[in-house]
Amino acid sequence: MTRPRVVVIGAGFGGIAAAHELARDPVDITIVDRNNFHTFQPLLYQVATAGLNSADVAFPVRAIFRRQPNVTFRKASVRGVDWERATLAVDEGSDIGFDHLVVAAGATTNTFGIDGAEHALPLYSLRDAVALRNHVLSQFELAASQPDAVVDGQLTFVVVGGGPTGVEVAGALVELFDQVLRKDFRSLDMSRAVVVLVEMRDDLLGSFHPPSRRHARETLASRGVDVRTGAVVDRITPAALHLRSGAVIATETVIWAAGVKADSLASVLGVEVGAGGRIVVGSDLTIPGHTGAYAVGDIAEIPGRDGPLPQVAQVAMQTGRHAARQIRASLEGASLRPFRYRDKGTMATIGRRAAVTELPIGLRLRGTLAWLAWLGLHLVYLAGFRNRISVFLNWAWNYITWDRGPRLILDTPPAHGDAPNDASEDAGEPPTESQRNR
Amino acid sequence: MTRPRVVVIGAGFGGIAAAHELARDPVDITIVDRNNFHTFQPLLYQVATAGLNSADVAFPVRAIFRRQPNVTFRKASVRGVDWERATLAVDEGSDIGFDHLVVAAGATTNTFGIDGAEHALPLYSLRDAVALRNHVLSQFELAASQPDAVVDGQLTFVVVGGGPTGVEVAGALVELFDQVLRKDFRSLDMSRAVVVLVEMRDDLLGSFHPPSRRHARETLASRGVDVRTGAVVDRITPAALHLRSGAVIATETVIWAAGVKADSLASVLGVEVGAGGRIVVGSDLTIPGHTGAYAVGDIAEIPGRDGPLPQVAQVAMQTGRHAARQIRASLEGASLRPFRYRDKGTMATIGRRAAVTELPIGLRLRGTLAWLAWLGLHLVYLAGFRNRISVFLNWAWNYITWDRGPRLILDTPPAHGDAPNDASEDAGEPPTESQRNR
Repeated sequence: MTRPRVVVIGAGFGGIAAAHELARDPVDITIVDRNNFHTFQPLLYQVATAGLNSADVAFPVRAIFRRQPNVTFRKASVRGVDWERATLAVDEGSDIGFDHLVVAAGATTNTFGIDGAEHALPLYSLRDAVALRNHVLSQFELAASQPDAVVDGQLTFVVVGGGPTGVEVAGALVELFDQVLRKDFRSLDMSRAVVVLVEMRDDLLGSFHPPSRRHARETLASRGVDVRTGAVVDRITPAALHLRSGAVIATETVIWAAGVKADSLASVLGVEVGAGGRIVVGSDLTIPGHTGAYAVGDIAEIPGRDGPLPQVAQVAMQTGRHAARQIRASLEGASLRPFRYRDKGTMATIGRRAAVTELPIGLRLRGTLAWLAWLGLHLVYLAGFRNRISVFLNWAWNYITWDRGPRLILDTPPAHGDAPNDASEDAGEPPTESQRNR
Repeated sequence: MTRPRVVVIGAGFGGIAAAHELARDPVDITIVDRNNFHTFQPLLYQVATAGLNSADVAFPVRAIFRRQPNVTFRKASVRGVDWERATLAVDEGSDIGFDHLVVAAGATTNTFGIDGAEHALPLYSLRDAVALRNHVLSQFELAASQPDAVVDGQLTFVVVGGGPTGVEVAGALVELFDQVLRKDFRSLDMSRAVVVLVEMRDDLLGSFHPPSRRHARETLASRGVDVRTGAVVDRITPAALHLRSGAVIATETVIWAAGVKADSLASVLGVEVGAGGRIVVGSDLTIPGHTGAYAVGDIAEIPGRDGPLPQVAQVAMQTGRHAARQIRASLEGASLRPFRYRDKGTMATIGRRAAVTELPIGLRLRGTLAWLAWLGLHLVYLAGFRNRISVFLNWAWNYITWDRGPRLILDTPPAHGDAPNDASEDAGEPPTESQRNR
């Protein structure tokens, strides 16, 4: 008699946590992802700002589960779910049958239908991050190739979104310019390179407390970022960003870090979705009407005490684990339990040796101490993958030396067999969100 | 009064050596390359066989010359040379004027007009290497997605070319299958994965001595490579390789390591070219009819004692340096000298801890000793770039642990501003050849 088949859609934080939780259970787990790797999203902005290489933040799923015999991996895009036959339709290979399903396909960039959104560069997947890095470095190469012709906006970089991601990118960009590119592009007047951070609300880091917000703003400003709050984007053209106020910022680089929406898979499952396209689930994470099916992480609208939980890595990890426990309970004939979120705090870096950290015990850190906490937390997360110390060392080395590969303008051809999800722009998007609020 | 302008086309071994040699001379050097990085080609086959990451073998040119103030870098493709006005026409930015010119644009894959060449995967540039790696890994993902359907040739990998490159790739592939992928793809019967090495001549490594050739052949065979010498490729289809003998090998992967020809730039300069499109130069490396212009490395047909010198990294480095010295001599009013090649030996790895090395003093090494020499030589080469110890450590770590990033199937978008050279297939090809005979 075959063991119960657990299928997990998505190898992000949620999917990996679910599969890992069931390591010793008598089930056969199949993880499905359109990429053969997990992306460590908290560090994507580092790839985007030439601080780390792609390989420093991507982990082959097969390697992650090498020592977990009950896991099988399928590299495939999920086209849909046949609830009656309890199978997944995929783009490559045979249908995948399931007895229990965990939908953990994550989210994607949301540009809210803004006019000219196609001119903005998203920062959600590894592919996005590499494209962004190539673009930023190329702008400097372009400027260097015509030292006497100053093209307005050529070296102006606008980041839209004042949440943790936007703050991190803006801070990392100015560091890249001041500390690295200045030496690489000796003939360029680096004062021409400008970073503008645009936020709709009246302050950055809206989910943090006022002292943290102030610290972030002051730190960015002191490092030369032009912070503009209360600024709403009206439209984007190839040469400028237009604000609703009428102000126009000449720029050839608009980085979108201002919103996410559920992966389009959510819309083809024939289930109820809420705001941002997120799958509605019960407090026990089950998808209504579909016994044995759960949605976790960014793709799900998870009920919390004060409304739906934020789309952050912590939530993904905890709900992934909870869904796995629910599966275990149902196999043992026990009853399902509601999910209870444990907020372990939130962090945002503003650059090397600067960050804000807020822990639920009321402890708030700033500056270098916060940055060390951020570093330590990443070590813990990375070490959560067995045998990842080598990874961490490699990452730490790159981060500290900041010297080489990340500054490649490198294009590589489309991966063989990569079939983009119909409604999504990019092939290869990782399924889950970063651990910070957007 | 401005200093003499030395323009170097190509940031491969030849171009880098030339620019480096002139570090303290009173000249202004501009290096032009379509990529912003130098590719360490001897290790490209490692990227192709998922042993190293792209960033481990690519070095931003600006970083290489960070401490050499007389070097400027231009990321651009050279469209042609206006000899009368002594300027380069480039695809991006202003024309580049020169007083002295070093053409070091290297070579590219030569498929000799074989029928179906478009189905073969070249291995010359970093882009090629990544495409090859993606393809190889994807074949395994495909096979794993349909475990009950055995597609003939799906896991057969044919390498065409029994020179050092072909031998290295074949050896590295079987190692990848046996020691890494076997654990990653537990459900696959890895005995289905086959590597075939096809060589036109009667033996592998034709430029080595018989004992070395025998050792290479025996080692490969003992590791499971199907070595076929005296085998001439007739044509290639998407599902098979046809030999002139009539034999047909079912395969979806043909790796072309069997020939190079000069970069197409050579054909648009209006100068005489020889076999393989290589620029004819005098014994002093000057391009006939163009005072102050030199051709070095793979793009040049450099006269040696027994005919044109091979297209290997050693030759590129030595001729690059020599051209630089010629420039110095001409500036000092001294006479030009003929180039004399110093053969420092040749090496080929067959896998971890196996290699053949032949040094001109008659010393021939095999096995582990040869492999250590190979390792040591690479350290020397890598350390030749200032501050490259960190690079070497990183590379060594990846090589030894063999654990992570290299096994990504990762596609990244085209680099902004990358304009392929008109006659060449790939954007981003590095200009020079590997250090081994092909």
